Amino acid sequence: MLDKIRIVMVNTTHSGNIGAAARAMKNMGLSRLYLADPIAQIDEEAIQRSSRADDILSNAVICPSLEDAIAGCGLVVGTSARSRSIPWPLMNPRQCAAQASTAAQAGNEIALVFGRESRGLTNEELQLCNAHVHIPTDESFSSLNVSQAIQVICYEMRLAFTETGPQAGEPWGVEWDYPLATHEQLNGMLQHMEQALIDIGFLDPDTPKQLMARLRRLYLRAGPDKLELNILRGMFAAMQKQAAANRKPDHNELNEGSE
Amino acid sequence: MLDKIRIVMVNTTHSGNIGAAARAMKNMGLSRLYLADPIAQIDEEAIQRSSRADDILSNAVICPSLEDAIAGCGLVVGTSARSRSIPWPLMNPRQCAAQASTAAQAGNEIALVFGRESRGLTNEELQLCNAHVHIPTDESFSSLNVSQAIQVICYEMRLAFTETGPQAGEPWGVEWDYPLATHEQLNGMLQHMEQALIDIGFLDPDTPKQLMARLRRLYLRAGPDKLELNILRGMFAAMQKQAAANRKPDHNELNEGSE
Repeated sequence: MLDKIRIVMVNTTHSGNIGAAARAMKNMGLSRLYLADPIAQIDEEAIQRSSRADDILSNAVICPSLEDAIAGCGLVVGTSARSRSIPWPLMNPRQCAAQASTAAQAGNEIALVFGRESRGLTNEELQLCNAHVHIPTDESFSSLNVSQAIQVICYEMRLAFTETGPQAGEPWGVEWDYPLATHEQLNGMLQHMEQALIDIGFLDPDTPKQLMARLRRLYLRAGPDKLELNILRGMFAAMQKQAAANRKPDHNELNEGSE
Repeated sequence: MLDKIRIVMVNTTHSGNIGAAARAMKNMGLSRLYLADPIAQIDEEAIQRSSRADDILSNAVICPSLEDAIAGCGLVVGTSARSRSIPWPLMNPRQCAAQASTAAQAGNEIALVFGRESRGLTNEELQLCNAHVHIPTDESFSSLNVSQAIQVICYEMRLAFTETGPQAGEPWGVEWDYPLATHEQLNGMLQHMEQALIDIGFLDPDTPKQLMARLRRLYLRAGPDKLELNILRGMFAAMQKQAAANRKPDHNELNEGSE
């Protein structure tokens, strides 16, 4: 089941960290490394630091963006050292592993996303995630090396995935009836929602404030399944139909004026 | 209490690993590094890899032997990748952290001992230990980088010594910026939603099926806060306004008919 997990490294600067991450993954039985817009290459240093985990390096998937790297995933968790302007669901590594294990058992792909060495993930990147995971640290020295962070998270994943039976962290405690919506499906739904809100005059695209970020957080937190997503999109389509119909009377008035 | 713990590195070959270990320790709030008969020096690479944990490097205690490094300790635990010819008490990292925490509370000094990069601790060294700790790994690739092993063990120590899990009553592990909506407020929102969906023609009150039940489940699962609730209600009001505007032409038609 650990093969349901992608480790996604964003904008990584040091090839040694990519190699060390590959080794940490392989130690824990993970194998799927995604590099989103990497700055470093898979070079000699990466291979040396991987210490015979070079099969993971050879099979690494290099993507132009984080969005590409998390495509198809039902659960996307980003690592975060800081608390954000908008609070987002936050787990510790153990809770994260329990939730990932449940999601994997239900057949979902999972992405665990790690940011750049200098400054982690951006707010925009963190807002692509269903939830965030924070590795507890000393407050005065909170920045882990990225390969060390990957080691800790992969260690918790191994424990959660190889222990028998469902863990306490089961997100909903029951067998679910529909698969979770993928990242792209969620994004598509949110884009549809944004347009519908503009159409009905609720969202002003010139002064959007944090409206969509807050709605994004709400729906990502809920982790909608595919049926729920279809219901929401049906609702947005109906909203747009009403808005379109309201544009017609103007048309009719014009017709009346010309008659 | 974490200052009761010594991290002991035996015969370390690569200075980078010493630096990475110092950083891993400092991230987790540990500070006491002992180098037993080190081969590597604390050099530029060590300092660079420590990433501003160089205070730990400056204060590192260099000892001629493992015996010296563990002198005075009430609990000595050695890391072991292999099962040994003579069975020894063996813990996983979590058990080890619990035992260390108990020992520290009782006033004991604790040594956690990590072996050389190439072949870990010798049988003789392991037999100096009260117990062994094994980090679970994939059987086919079981050798962790020493600084990564130190990261995992220090992480478990921090959890056991500080219990930094999310607090009860904080559903998402972070301080949220708005209070959660109450049960009544959620019910009010869902009734508003139901009416808005009827108004825009998306929900047929005569054949509602499970639509509202599924939407209720979605929103209750997300656990909306009060601001999110207000956003949703604002959206429903805007939907209703569109629907009402679309009813006006009918009204006009009636008027036209009566004229």
